[in-house]
Amino acid sequence: MEKKMGILDYETVALDDENSALVIIDQTLLPGEIKLLKLKTQKEIWTAIRKLQVRGAPAIGDAAAIGIYLAAKEIQTDNYEEFVAQFNKAKDYLASARPTAVNLFWALDHMARLVYQLPNSSVEDIKRVLRYEAGAVKADDIRTCQRIGENGLKLLQPGWGILTHCNAGQLATAKYGTATAPMYLGQQQGYNFKIYADETRPLLQGARLTAFELYSAGMDVTLLCDNMAASLMQQGKIQAVLVGCDRVAANGDVANKIGTSAVAILAKHYKIPFYVCAPSSTIDLDTPTGADIVIEQRAPEEVTAMWYKEPMAPAGVKVYNPAFDVTDHKLITGIITEYGVASGYYKRSFRKILPPHVLDNFSK
Amino acid sequence: MEKKMGILDYETVALDDENSALVIIDQTLLPGEIKLLKLKTQKEIWTAIRKLQVRGAPAIGDAAAIGIYLAAKEIQTDNYEEFVAQFNKAKDYLASARPTAVNLFWALDHMARLVYQLPNSSVEDIKRVLRYEAGAVKADDIRTCQRIGENGLKLLQPGWGILTHCNAGQLATAKYGTATAPMYLGQQQGYNFKIYADETRPLLQGARLTAFELYSAGMDVTLLCDNMAASLMQQGKIQAVLVGCDRVAANGDVANKIGTSAVAILAKHYKIPFYVCAPSSTIDLDTPTGADIVIEQRAPEEVTAMWYKEPMAPAGVKVYNPAFDVTDHKLITGIITEYGVASGYYKRSFRKILPPHVLDNFSK
Repeated sequence: MEKKMGILDYETVALDDENSALVIIDQTLLPGEIKLLKLKTQKEIWTAIRKLQVRGAPAIGDAAAIGIYLAAKEIQTDNYEEFVAQFNKAKDYLASARPTAVNLFWALDHMARLVYQLPNSSVEDIKRVLRYEAGAVKADDIRTCQRIGENGLKLLQPGWGILTHCNAGQLATAKYGTATAPMYLGQQQGYNFKIYADETRPLLQGARLTAFELYSAGMDVTLLCDNMAASLMQQGKIQAVLVGCDRVAANGDVANKIGTSAVAILAKHYKIPFYVCAPSSTIDLDTPTGADIVIEQRAPEEVTAMWYKEPMAPAGVKVYNPAFDVTDHKLITGIITEYGVASGYYKRSFRKILPPHVLDNFSK
Repeated sequence: MEKKMGILDYETVALDDENSALVIIDQTLLPGEIKLLKLKTQKEIWTAIRKLQVRGAPAIGDAAAIGIYLAAKEIQTDNYEEFVAQFNKAKDYLASARPTAVNLFWALDHMARLVYQLPNSSVEDIKRVLRYEAGAVKADDIRTCQRIGENGLKLLQPGWGILTHCNAGQLATAKYGTATAPMYLGQQQGYNFKIYADETRPLLQGARLTAFELYSAGMDVTLLCDNMAASLMQQGKIQAVLVGCDRVAANGDVANKIGTSAVAILAKHYKIPFYVCAPSSTIDLDTPTGADIVIEQRAPEEVTAMWYKEPMAPAGVKVYNPAFDVTDHKLITGIITEYGVASGYYKRSFRKILPPHVLDNFSK
């Protein structure tokens, strides 16, 4: 019997079998076309990150780790100092692809620290360690998503209607996603969730990516415009909200895709649990509250012109287009991490569930 | 000094000076092009209503009144019975243009009642009365909007940030609009409002019409995606919400464009007054609550395909696309009518502010 290829048959980011190329799904072509790109040069990898052909914080980190390994592999020297100099140049170049992507810097710095710790090793050995570590970064991402899936699924019941916003899905990670991990796991275990995906204006990641990946995985998914979520809740069709996040402050405030805080307020109004799925890497205990997170404003054209043949707004009109918003911790029922679910007084709850090696990353 | 033509220099719907054509702004071309259409035949008028070249409940009523006058004018007979037969045929034909547009039927029935009340008049006289009444219907629409503007403006203060959703603007009426009437009046009186317009997916009436008409009128207007309203409120930029409505139930529940109820919940969360601007013609005291209002589901393609060159959702995915939602009366600070502002216990409040000739339309 022939099995239709589903989204879980692909990884969003991978090193090819010859260790010579970064293989990604070109996300700018979704949902129209599933096309795998094989990226070999620094320039190709830089461009793919820049053009959002690969996007989503964990996936960018995975891509950067593989990318800097591939760049290091091409460095033609046996001399450690010369290698480091060229490595740093490649690292700075890749880091410039998206100046606000924390996971990009994290992954590059993580790989660089390894290099700096091996001054007495051969360049050949260092390259081998970098390849190994790029694989470890990705494996860690996949394991994290799996655990978020397990921890999240315990909070859900079969047959529930679940709303999500934006794409914290498989396409934002190497596999499973964060907010989608409990959905994929639930599907494997016969939970028969009814998933509702906000389209997520302006860039429509919910329509183009989340609806695509869940539909492609054979799930019962329904697409809606962002302004229709309240209507669904009013009719009792939503039993839980699951979203991802870009950054979590020490008090549990969450920065995520614009519109997330609105969904949280609606969920509270309708007494529906609102869960944030957050790899511990997104929790920043050195950021006291959401008010300390700077929100990026993006170009008006994303709202007024994107993809359209006809003008959809008067030329020259002012546009408010923040990339993210901050959801108040009081609106969040629980923050689901790979180490467990934080809730209530988040400052204390994080210290309770996060292991020492994670807590050690923070100043207090 | 040359004055730039603003939106208030046009009327959305008008009878031309020769009493021979219905003149409308073709709203399907906005915001790219302001084009006036001169419609002379029944077929042209039917098509314009059908194709939404004229839309918005009051504007459709105005267009229908002028349209049926123009149709009556063309009837070539001096015989009353023959005239009535042809008139009824034209009336039924125009009524078929949009089978759910209450104001279309209201205006046509209103004009027909006049005809039926004049069995002993000459056809020439009846045609003159119809022309006069078509003007009266439009004048009444304009006066209603002006009074909503006056009643609404008393609730607002200079410099306020005001959020609106969809288009309850001049383009939905002959002039001034309903939710926009206090904005136009405030502009004339130097209130310097900062207006924020939700784009209003899926059909983008907020971007294409509201942002267009307010910008064209020289107002300080900023466009945003529907999911960005909570972020604006969080930052203290919104001091009041003004929306229009399609139908108001006896208990004050309001059916309006999908997404309205979400804005109301957000406003309540942020303690921002939420006002509905409602001509008394939209208040239906024979509909007990919002739960008694049937919500139309519209085609999936409005969400998945509209205007786009690239697919924006996976082919075949399920779509939730209700045209309206119901805002609970408890979320509404006040309902602004041409007769005053209803609030609190709406059932009683409506009886207090509405005059007898309006209350007489209802069974109890």
